Amino acid sequence: LDQTQLPGATSFLRLKKPEGVERAIRSLQVRGAPAIGLAGAWALVLAMVQEPGADRQTLDTGFARWKARLAGARPTAVNLAWALDRMAEDFHALDPQTSRDEVIATLTRRAQSLQADDAAVGLRLAEAGLGLLEPGWGLLTHCNAGAIATAAWGTALAPIHLGQDRGYGFRVWADETRPLLQGSRLTAWELQKAGVDLTLICDGAAASILASGKVQAVLVGCDRVAANGDVANKVGTLGLAVLARHFSVPFYVFAPVSTIDLSTPTGAQIPVEERDASEVTTLFSRAPVAPAGVRVSNPAFDITPASLVTALVTDRGILRPPYPAGLQEVVHGPALP
Amino acid sequence: LDQTQLPGATSFLRLKKPEGVERAIRSLQVRGAPAIGLAGAWALVLAMVQEPGADRQTLDTGFARWKARLAGARPTAVNLAWALDRMAEDFHALDPQTSRDEVIATLTRRAQSLQADDAAVGLRLAEAGLGLLEPGWGLLTHCNAGAIATAAWGTALAPIHLGQDRGYGFRVWADETRPLLQGSRLTAWELQKAGVDLTLICDGAAASILASGKVQAVLVGCDRVAANGDVANKVGTLGLAVLARHFSVPFYVFAPVSTIDLSTPTGAQIPVEERDASEVTTLFSRAPVAPAGVRVSNPAFDITPASLVTALVTDRGILRPPYPAGLQEVVHGPALP
Repeated sequence: LDQTQLPGATSFLRLKKPEGVERAIRSLQVRGAPAIGLAGAWALVLAMVQEPGADRQTLDTGFARWKARLAGARPTAVNLAWALDRMAEDFHALDPQTSRDEVIATLTRRAQSLQADDAAVGLRLAEAGLGLLEPGWGLLTHCNAGAIATAAWGTALAPIHLGQDRGYGFRVWADETRPLLQGSRLTAWELQKAGVDLTLICDGAAASILASGKVQAVLVGCDRVAANGDVANKVGTLGLAVLARHFSVPFYVFAPVSTIDLSTPTGAQIPVEERDASEVTTLFSRAPVAPAGVRVSNPAFDITPASLVTALVTDRGILRPPYPAGLQEVVHGPALP
Repeated sequence: LDQTQLPGATSFLRLKKPEGVERAIRSLQVRGAPAIGLAGAWALVLAMVQEPGADRQTLDTGFARWKARLAGARPTAVNLAWALDRMAEDFHALDPQTSRDEVIATLTRRAQSLQADDAAVGLRLAEAGLGLLEPGWGLLTHCNAGAIATAAWGTALAPIHLGQDRGYGFRVWADETRPLLQGSRLTAWELQKAGVDLTLICDGAAASILASGKVQAVLVGCDRVAANGDVANKVGTLGLAVLARHFSVPFYVFAPVSTIDLSTPTGAQIPVEERDASEVTTLFSRAPVAPAGVRVSNPAFDITPASLVTALVTDRGILRPPYPAGLQEVVHGPALP
């Protein structure tokens, strides 16, 4: 699904080469941390298909080259690196004598299972998240942490979809989410299709909506959770977290275990991708809305400190502060009850 | 200056009828609370010029009709009603025998003096504001409270212009200010023309800029100050005030005395204009960026409680909390030292 064409057109890309997938990731045709991870996994399958030599040395070199190249396509989200690492585990576990066809079959099975797992993760996030919410609540979300950002269900939108199925009657406010308008283009499209009671607002209007008392919880996804619970997510998330704290509204971050990066101690070590100035200066019309030559700062993400996060909703349970021990447990330990 | 054409074209409107001025106010071709007030004052002069009958009864009726009609063109800003009231004072003080030409001459003098006063107000705001700032500081602003929103100097941007003249070397971050992008279209244009070191950001990026420690003060204008110090200003101002408080950055609101409305007890009584959904759903391209039929909430303003305002910078001195007595004094009492 080419998400840059939404909401105007529902158009699908048929990508047969890893270059095409890499381009789709960089250009945000595929976006959403879990969906990017799955696209990266499938790109490694395509890389093995197109490798001209079939000997193990050639396949090893090609795999390593593509793994590094794909990992660099979006540096902030950790799911991409995580999915590529899962593919690499299976690749390196293969006997050196394995034929190329068997390599491709093995990687295909792993990509399929990552995709199935992600759909199961979405349903677990939906159930866990719905347990935090009451029927009739007003909810506010930012960016698109929806079904189209994952294999199914989504992350922050997963409990909204499940609540819709179960008649919870949520009223949802969606930030438009400048600069790329994932809220108006994607979340509004996805929730409208699902029949959810939705109101679109400019990012700057979130404060007065929260002040009005209409919103009982803020739900957001995330691109990476550091070991201390700091969260990287779409730019604007930090501001929303501060507002939620100020107006005493719980701020829930939906974090599949694949987004938890224990090797990153705090948010300060998460690289924040700086994107092109034209996203700010020209909107989608290509007609300038800012004077020529103006300097722009266009960070794609921001870092929300763990202290502003009411709870981290993971597919292995809900974590409350302090986060470090709980994060270790959901990554390394047995699943929480 | 048709501000809807900026930054692409510097185009001037020549308006000879009050209808044209009313339309320019409604369509935001003229915007900024003080500039709207001056435009309204001049529109009353034009209304008297076009009145077919010259007898006092006809002029009285026409004046009252146009005063009410113009006051309704933008309900949130109080300067418009304030300027129309100043014109009405002079109009009603005239002897019933005054000729139409003399009526027009009297109203013209008052409109000219309101305009000269507004320029003087800007310079006083500039001096008062600059006293709160240090050379080399980073400053963040929202919307356009600039020279082009007033007769001269501006309100929140006035100390930035004066600081530029005096070599203060400020680094300024400007919120783009969705939905109508007054920040990217107007503030970036105005400050770039003035040679100020400026960086344009999306509204959602303000939080991470404030978190980074690069900003030492937030400066905003306002459309109305209630008697308790609550402030109505462009949507997004409340969120910025909460962020400034959270990150311990002073939040200064620039309020000419003409924006202080002692007849409004608190922000809860300030009407907030709800503008057209298309401002959110179609940007400036007229190409939809949101699905057809989506519900939108598009408040033009929000209300910032007095408790989040570090100081109110008026043209009769700087007020600190608690505000009610100081606001009474700057409106009714002698000028502060």
